[in-house]
Amino acid sequence: MVDEILPAHGPWNAVADWAGALADISGSLSLLGWDRETAMPPGGAEGRAKLLGTLSALHHRELTRPDGDDLIAAAADDPIGPEGQRIVTLLRRERERATKVPEALVREISEAGSRCVSTWITTRPADDFPAFAETLEPLVALKRQEADLLCRDGGEPYDALLERFEPGARAAELEGVFARVADGIGELLAGIDRDPPVNGQQEWDPQRQMELARHLADLVGFDRDRGVIGQSAHPFTCTPHRGDVRFTTRVSAHEPVSNVLAVMHEAGHALYEQGFPDRFWRTPLFDAPSLGAHESQSRFVENHIGRTAAFWESLSDRLTELFPDAMRAGGVAPLHRAATRVEPSLIRVEADEVTYNLHIVLRFELELALIRGDLAVRDLPGAWADRMNDLLGVRPETDGTGCMQDIHWPEGMFGYFPTYTLGNLYAAMIERAMEAELGPIEPLIRTGDLEPVVTFLRERVHRHANLRDTGELMAAVTGGPLSEQPFLAHLRAAYDPRA
Amino acid sequence: MVDEILPAHGPWNAVADWAGALADISGSLSLLGWDRETAMPPGGAEGRAKLLGTLSALHHRELTRPDGDDLIAAAADDPIGPEGQRIVTLLRRERERATKVPEALVREISEAGSRCVSTWITTRPADDFPAFAETLEPLVALKRQEADLLCRDGGEPYDALLERFEPGARAAELEGVFARVADGIGELLAGIDRDPPVNGQQEWDPQRQMELARHLADLVGFDRDRGVIGQSAHPFTCTPHRGDVRFTTRVSAHEPVSNVLAVMHEAGHALYEQGFPDRFWRTPLFDAPSLGAHESQSRFVENHIGRTAAFWESLSDRLTELFPDAMRAGGVAPLHRAATRVEPSLIRVEADEVTYNLHIVLRFELELALIRGDLAVRDLPGAWADRMNDLLGVRPETDGTGCMQDIHWPEGMFGYFPTYTLGNLYAAMIERAMEAELGPIEPLIRTGDLEPVVTFLRERVHRHANLRDTGELMAAVTGGPLSEQPFLAHLRAAYDPRA
Repeated sequence: MVDEILPAHGPWNAVADWAGALADISGSLSLLGWDRETAMPPGGAEGRAKLLGTLSALHHRELTRPDGDDLIAAAADDPIGPEGQRIVTLLRRERERATKVPEALVREISEAGSRCVSTWITTRPADDFPAFAETLEPLVALKRQEADLLCRDGGEPYDALLERFEPGARAAELEGVFARVADGIGELLAGIDRDPPVNGQQEWDPQRQMELARHLADLVGFDRDRGVIGQSAHPFTCTPHRGDVRFTTRVSAHEPVSNVLAVMHEAGHALYEQGFPDRFWRTPLFDAPSLGAHESQSRFVENHIGRTAAFWESLSDRLTELFPDAMRAGGVAPLHRAATRVEPSLIRVEADEVTYNLHIVLRFELELALIRGDLAVRDLPGAWADRMNDLLGVRPETDGTGCMQDIHWPEGMFGYFPTYTLGNLYAAMIERAMEAELGPIEPLIRTGDLEPVVTFLRERVHRHANLRDTGELMAAVTGGPLSEQPFLAHLRAAYDPRA
Repeated sequence: MVDEILPAHGPWNAVADWAGALADISGSLSLLGWDRETAMPPGGAEGRAKLLGTLSALHHRELTRPDGDDLIAAAADDPIGPEGQRIVTLLRRERERATKVPEALVREISEAGSRCVSTWITTRPADDFPAFAETLEPLVALKRQEADLLCRDGGEPYDALLERFEPGARAAELEGVFARVADGIGELLAGIDRDPPVNGQQEWDPQRQMELARHLADLVGFDRDRGVIGQSAHPFTCTPHRGDVRFTTRVSAHEPVSNVLAVMHEAGHALYEQGFPDRFWRTPLFDAPSLGAHESQSRFVENHIGRTAAFWESLSDRLTELFPDAMRAGGVAPLHRAATRVEPSLIRVEADEVTYNLHIVLRFELELALIRGDLAVRDLPGAWADRMNDLLGVRPETDGTGCMQDIHWPEGMFGYFPTYTLGNLYAAMIERAMEAELGPIEPLIRTGDLEPVVTFLRERVHRHANLRDTGELMAAVTGGPLSEQPFLAHLRAAYDPRA
């Protein structure tokens, strides 16, 4: 209960009720979203949008309630230790973001985003960039207005958008780090032999793949008494409230590796949320400090465990039990090869562990230029194709497989993409710190004894939830600032035949 | 959209937004409840309760907003025809209920109910009535307070509780009708031969039973593009919003009849909600006028279609296709016998179509006495056992199988039980009116051509949604006032060997 963390007296009572109501509305929104992706019939789309809109408006109204500043100030005057101070900081931060942008602009952005998404849905298959640009242009203009309003004096407007997803991150720092990531990966790619695509003729029974999903979830310590595993077209994780953490996977009869990696990725997110202290619930502490921090956990489980040869070997017996026919064709070796095949390609969501980050660098550079006003929306296709060619050596023939492939910009989510690569960098930094303490984790993975690995994550990351910003959290775990070096070393060790 | 029914001008704009927000919050609550019964992990119970509590409080706050009376008055001064007038009436009625009872009493009742339910969960298996009574007594006292506050001058306090579930119904009328129902059933029971229990050794594959559920839903016209069929321990129907109507069934390998009847019952409810005009959505019109009206639709499909020999014969081929082994044992005859076996017993939820209503008469009489103050909680076990014996000729050995069997009183739902039997009475009245127009429906059921039957329900009941109160609606359909005669005639035709 909240009163485990907040004293049931004076101004903290009111803050606890307020924060609790905000958390409950957010949790309801997240459940409405879960259901939309996993259960809702096709006819429900329009109605569901109304419910989501009304609850979002109620959340905004609650967050911006007229007496909010007084509540926060009264709590700040009644200090109850670092946890209470952090709650005050986070509430103040969230409220500032919500009050600095006038409601009219919030509504304009939301409507421009809805229009742009609808247009994207029809123009992408038709490859009609000019029609799409007509809705993206006003959206970018509105997001630039929002960034200007949120921006501190003399600061970088893009940082204000980044702040929503990655508090504390700055474009100036990311520009340097991401350039070094791109260089390092470029060097690595030059030396990697191209494997032929892995042939997938076998049938992997979908029901048994869900059994495998449960097995993997158990293996990494996901508590199914306090969680659910579902299926959806795009895997995701959500937590409506304490005691109910959910993730989905996607299952296709010919792609067992895609299911396994999706489960490992989402279970990484889900473990994080199951690891938040119960008593933080219904306060802003019951959260990750950023999407990059969150992604570090999913990427760790997906890439640093789920793509290793040791992991696939550890699964061998179980896979043979579940899929005797399919496994007869070649055992786990082709599965591990499929999980680690590197091949520059056009589509981000299908990219391998290595080239994925070049897709992110591309998007970061272009969205930064859009928000700075250095790139016009109409020039996006050419800029995309050129930079894609520089970074990955491939050039899209169509805008649908180029700058129109993602839904995120139409949704107005500028400042979001960098968190994916930040997650990869943090995951590698965490692995380095973990191995300094536990020794190599490969033998643990090989024997299926993930407990020490998971305990490290729980103790050093999960249980701190949103007690501090990501930079500080990661410095405490890894002993140093953000760096691309551990990640590049990890990629070389895993992928460079010369290593 | 709302603006299809409400003009987008003047005071109606504000009323549309208000009614829309109320509908969206209710819809979210109903989805949170659906998920709790169908998907939520065991660890989520406490958290879910908080979300439900917060959204309920937001609904109450929205309903009782300080300017609500002004909004309603302004809309009433700007008449837009009978639909607008009805919206004004319904909003005013709902708001009056919400404002007449002080929030402190609402909270006290809610907390007393939670305590009583928790106590019920542990004391029922232990048969500990005294411990249970300690929590039921204060709850009854609070409900009596509520009834007094809601009651019109000189009226019957119980009517104020009944009004929540069955607007327009009055205890005085129900006393007469229910007494005649009890007499009629008593006479019928005296003449019915007792069948032996139907032996159920066969295995009915649960996955194929869900296929059967979809077949039945299609058969009665449930639109699965705008609906979902799920599973839960206790079947129910809910509609989070237009375009998304859901019901559950329960599936057990040895009780296919229970699944079939649950599907027919819930599909009856679900058809009703799918039949509300789309343009009524997000107004109080998008609802049934009462639970009795709602139950008339579920009981019609369950009992007047689903328990007939013609229905089971029409299913024969499909059942043989789906369950060849189980059907070899005796075809549909034992299934129809199981669906129509009459046997007085102690437990309401296991009762047959005939004796079910005696369980309702018992509860109605006792709860009326409790609210009138004519019966003390401590005297409930004896009163229950005696009256059970009068009505059904059986006497519970334990309170767990007696007055402690239902969750509804612990939940504070006094005035709710009568709606079940009202549903049965209305269903039979509707069948009589339908057959006067269409001729006997038995041949339609036998050939699986339910379209004329469903069209009658859609045209005469569903599409009127909450445009008028139940009495008026049913009078328009059946040409007369509430009467037990068609129901008793239906029971005699279906069950009396002398008929």
